[in-house]
Amino acid sequence: MAFDPDTLRFNADGLIPAIAQAEDGQVLMMAWMNREAVLRTLKTGRVTYWSRSRQAFWVKGETSGHLQRLVEMRVDCDRDCLLMIVDQTGPACHTNRRSCFYTALRRGEEVELMTPDR
Amino acid sequence: MAFDPDTLRFNADGLIPAIAQAEDGQVLMMAWMNREAVLRTLKTGRVTYWSRSRQAFWVKGETSGHLQRLVEMRVDCDRDCLLMIVDQTGPACHTNRRSCFYTALRRGEEVELMTPDR
Repeated sequence: MAFDPDTLRFNADGLIPAIAQAEDGQVLMMAWMNREAVLRTLKTGRVTYWSRSRQAFWVKGETSGHLQRLVEMRVDCDRDCLLMIVDQTGPACHTNRRSCFYTALRRGEEVELMTPDR
Repeated sequence: MAFDPDTLRFNADGLIPAIAQAEDGQVLMMAWMNREAVLRTLKTGRVTYWSRSRQAFWVKGETSGHLQRLVEMRVDCDRDCLLMIVDQTGPACHTNRRSCFYTALRRGEEVELMTPDR
């Protein structure tokens, strides 16, 4: 069946959450896409989010060089969330860590799982 | 540092997205939690979401038996998304597939990656 972006369920702001996962399984980050960002990502192979704070397209790594190349986009059963398998250049997190999910909660304490790359 | 749930950034509806990932790395699903669901999940070790459609707590698997036992909860850098490493009993998806992300987009076509468990 051909993919129709209009079958995706965007929220009231026209956005859908998009999870980026590295090919080794590590979840790197979650950000948001609008319809056009989905299409740009599929067309260019460069993962492109919609920045809610800047209200602008955000080609991941365009300024930092930490690009995300799309390996495969997946849609969930409810069509209201995307999972992208990506080839990540450098750290995905703006703190210079590979993943944004570097803080674990263990016995009520926050534990740092990764240190920033140098 | 002690974890303070009030440092999480919930959206205008008081919700935060929560990604469930199996210990082998497979991303199973994404759903939403409110503050109380986060606390119940941490306290009970049973992953508990907030159902937006039913406006009620949703202890994953409570009716289906497909429970999610929390292995570890992680918080992202912006504190507006959670990643839960879980021990999933049976399929996570209501379609009886292990993951909700069973549809891949390849060359403009939708490809089914998993079939339902029997």
